[in-house]
Amino acid sequence: MPSVVDVAGVKIGGEEVVVIAGPCSVESREQLLETAHGVKRAGATMLRGGAYKPRTSPYEFQGLGIEALKILREAREQTGLPVVTEVMSTEDVDVICEYADMLQVGARNMQNFALLRRLATTQKPVLLKRGPSAIVKEWLLAAEYLLSGGNDQVVLCERGIKTFETATRNTIDLASIALAKELSHLPVIADPSHGTGKQSLIGAVSRAAIAVGADGIIVEVHPCPERALSDGPQSLDLAQFEKVMRSLSDPLRPLATVKAGQAA
Amino acid sequence: MPSVVDVAGVKIGGEEVVVIAGPCSVESREQLLETAHGVKRAGATMLRGGAYKPRTSPYEFQGLGIEALKILREAREQTGLPVVTEVMSTEDVDVICEYADMLQVGARNMQNFALLRRLATTQKPVLLKRGPSAIVKEWLLAAEYLLSGGNDQVVLCERGIKTFETATRNTIDLASIALAKELSHLPVIADPSHGTGKQSLIGAVSRAAIAVGADGIIVEVHPCPERALSDGPQSLDLAQFEKVMRSLSDPLRPLATVKAGQAA
Amino acid sequence: MPSVVDVAGVKIGGEEVVVIAGPCSVESREQLLETAHGVKRAGATMLRGGAYKPRTSPYEFQGLGIEALKILREAREQTGLPVVTEVMSTEDVDVICEYADMLQVGARNMQNFALLRRLATTQKPVLLKRGPSAIVKEWLLAAEYLLSGGNDQVVLCERGIKTFETATRNTIDLASIALAKELSHLPVIADPSHGTGKQSLIGAVSRAAIAVGADGIIVEVHPCPERALSDGPQSLDLAQFEKVMRSLSDPLRPLATVKAGQAA
Amino acid sequence: MPSVVDVAGVKIGGEEVVVIAGPCSVESREQLLETAHGVKRAGATMLRGGAYKPRTSPYEFQGLGIEALKILREAREQTGLPVVTEVMSTEDVDVICEYADMLQVGARNMQNFALLRRLATTQKPVLLKRGPSAIVKEWLLAAEYLLSGGNDQVVLCERGIKTFETATRNTIDLASIALAKELSHLPVIADPSHGTGKQSLIGAVSRAAIAVGADGIIVEVHPCPERALSDGPQSLDLAQFEKVMRSLSDPLRPLATVKAGQAA
Repeated sequence: MPSVVDVAGVKIGGEEVVVIAGPCSVESREQLLETAHGVKRAGATMLRGGAYKPRTSPYEFQGLGIEALKILREAREQTGLPVVTEVMSTEDVDVICEYADMLQVGARNMQNFALLRRLATTQKPVLLKRGPSAIVKEWLLAAEYLLSGGNDQVVLCERGIKTFETATRNTIDLASIALAKELSHLPVIADPSHGTGKQSLIGAVSRAAIAVGADGIIVEVHPCPERALSDGPQSLDLAQFEKVMRSLSDPLRPLATVKAGQAA
Repeated sequence: MPSVVDVAGVKIGGEEVVVIAGPCSVESREQLLETAHGVKRAGATMLRGGAYKPRTSPYEFQGLGIEALKILREAREQTGLPVVTEVMSTEDVDVICEYADMLQVGARNMQNFALLRRLATTQKPVLLKRGPSAIVKEWLLAAEYLLSGGNDQVVLCERGIKTFETATRNTIDLASIALAKELSHLPVIADPSHGTGKQSLIGAVSRAAIAVGADGIIVEVHPCPERALSDGPQSLDLAQFEKVMRSLSDPLRPLATVKAGQAA
Repeated sequence: MPSVVDVAGVKIGGEEVVVIAGPCSVESREQLLETAHGVKRAGATMLRGGAYKPRTSPYEFQGLGIEALKILREAREQTGLPVVTEVMSTEDVDVICEYADMLQVGARNMQNFALLRRLATTQKPVLLKRGPSAIVKEWLLAAEYLLSGGNDQVVLCERGIKTFETATRNTIDLASIALAKELSHLPVIADPSHGTGKQSLIGAVSRAAIAVGADGIIVEVHPCPERALSDGPQSLDLAQFEKVMRSLSDPLRPLATVKAGQAA
Repeated sequence: MPSVVDVAGVKIGGEEVVVIAGPCSVESREQLLETAHGVKRAGATMLRGGAYKPRTSPYEFQGLGIEALKILREAREQTGLPVVTEVMSTEDVDVICEYADMLQVGARNMQNFALLRRLATTQKPVLLKRGPSAIVKEWLLAAEYLLSGGNDQVVLCERGIKTFETATRNTIDLASIALAKELSHLPVIADPSHGTGKQSLIGAVSRAAIAVGADGIIVEVHPCPERALSDGPQSLDLAQFEKVMRSLSDPLRPLATVKAGQAA
């Protein structure tokens, strides 16, 4: 029987699809609060925002740290949206547990076993992203580090794998969502923002993720993507996000039928 | 403006989604006719079936050739379903044009430029599968060989790319469908059978393909998959196909909403 | 026992390593003759040059065709170097057999089974490139189309596979050369030009190919790479080629040894 | 100018090629001491051995931890071979620094930025493995976390990337060694054991790594590979390792030359 993970009242894995939205990084109080109120208005039920950022280069913006955690808590108080944020290090686990409702393990850390073992000892729900080169089996075994260590509040997240394709940032493996749900009882969500890296594809891929069986989506939203300190090209502005949200309730396109006179 | 390709009265790229179904290979008159009637009853609007089969090994079943073409024509006469079948060689183009309504260029031949040039000179619609390691740009440039050569009746088909994942036969790149439709005016369909290689995933991936914007799907159906001479593990039987067809009209799962009392 | 393939007197798969060199495309009589004499002077034992070019886009230079074949024959007469050139279509097999000593099946055509079946009926040696997404098993099975069809004069060529790496054009899989030689009796050569796409890496990768067990290398050389109509960035000029050739006889770098006084 | 990293007297990046050998995991005092003496006799100049093991599944052998570190120190005292071992967690850095001469960052942790930042503050040389899906640029930027943080004793290690090929465990990207040395001043070594996953390929790939310019190789050796608790199929026994070592001094196979009478 499928598991349902409860994140401060939001149920992931139940009847309904959960939408998590917010900026890649918390950049300022104003930016986050504007985004939080905006995504709530558009229908999101959880808030995302990075405080500690894993960046490929040490010379890039690394996140505001504890200051960001405080801003996230303020946004939570104002909007009621539970907060998920990334944890990169065993040393940050305690402080993040104090401020956030759910802890995200980023794709690059999917096999950071020391971090997984530490998170297994907390009572917080964990969002476990699939590594960019992890087969589904490795992803499920990474989740086993959490489960066997005592934390069964685990949600899986497909965020795209590395392939030879260069037009998209990653190749989102939507079939893996159906497969992970077949092989495991855990909820699975999709990240179309990292999965494609392109604003224009996020609406279509979000719909597809829901159609394939995802229990939720996590989407990057920024009040002004062109000024974002990270992930601008894949972030939606608030108007685009509202439009995507509305499209998620549209019916699927109808099937063609055999026309009279076509048959023999 | 998007192009619509007319295959003997079936319009691909219009308002409605086209379902093409049938066996990997035509194995016998009985097998094909049973499948053709079955998929028509379930709602398919076109018939697929291989006469000339591209097989990795020369020691595998290579298809019935012209005998298969004759059986396909008989099925078309009985059911009214237009027929698509693969062409592997410039030398077979004329005979296949005589029997089929649409010619498929298989994934391995996507950059068989001699074949593309020859097909550009026919008046038949062409179904151009994406190569398993082709970036979207290469796929669109392969289509240019047809278009610039004089044949604009081209439908693209995403059928999965090669990645490190081993649980599925290929990784179906559904975002590439949205991307190809953004970059090109050509209709694009999805092949969840080759794209996943697993019966159990075909329904979910078909729904996702439609949700992402595909103009159709092409599905392998066999009256008895476990006895199929090729592609058994990814073929649906007729009952499974009917069930998949019904699921294609289900609405998307609803979104969760913020509960009263959840907000601050 | 390993097979030796004899190409007009040059033995591939014997005691010695064969170097095949020449331009990507034959562009003019002057260009080819200058290259042919230059690579012979530097020690090459076979000449390559494209007459019919497989190009991703129909709007790119497609090769000089039969005119190029005539120029290749003249270069062969002047230098004595046997000639290998690519065949893209069953229709060109006869004319190329007339002019060339060895027929190359390009990477995109590795699974063009119609072409392989046709080449199996000729008496000419075939150079079978590995497809950019072919596993070693598929490559060997493609060779089986030639062998089982009656032509055992087959040389395999590893030319790089498609991966997520973007700094090189392809990822040359040198271990696959050792593996193919373990699994098969056929000679195997390496193509560092396509395998890396970068002039600066060709010398090092050529040495590595020989060290891993390759029976030869095939290298793109052009009198003036920056003016080449195709593959300029991966082509060596004649001076660079001479330097690479000299480096192929250098001994391997010596191993460090445990220093006196280092031990306990 | 290329950097030379000094690991307790062994210079990596200098005139000579360094061979690091030892078991995947330290399994017992007997196993490690036998291996250490054996690899020294065969010519290795450094010893490897895992104390803390990153394992895909939490149910697999996880290493002996501090007990293994003590055994490694004993082996170092008996043989004089400096020791490299993997560090998986910031919490283990201090204890490993006490026992080992060089700290390895495993492929799965290449972008564990918290760990890299912590290692930047030690004075120990670091062996930074390339992640299985990292492009060369990401690998060099991971090294920047060490360099910019104050530790310039960094050696890079190519250990294979993930591709669609299934006959080998990974695809070793030997060209990336030449490329990394072109783009960076750091020494680069190769890991043919993880790079191929097959005993039979390790000798050939080791030679190729040296030919392409690697400053060293790191090889898994176990007294009895079929009983190894991890990585048995890619581990050499002592006799095989001696044979590989001898082959590293063999000259490259000679080039064919144009035979008299062959020219026109």
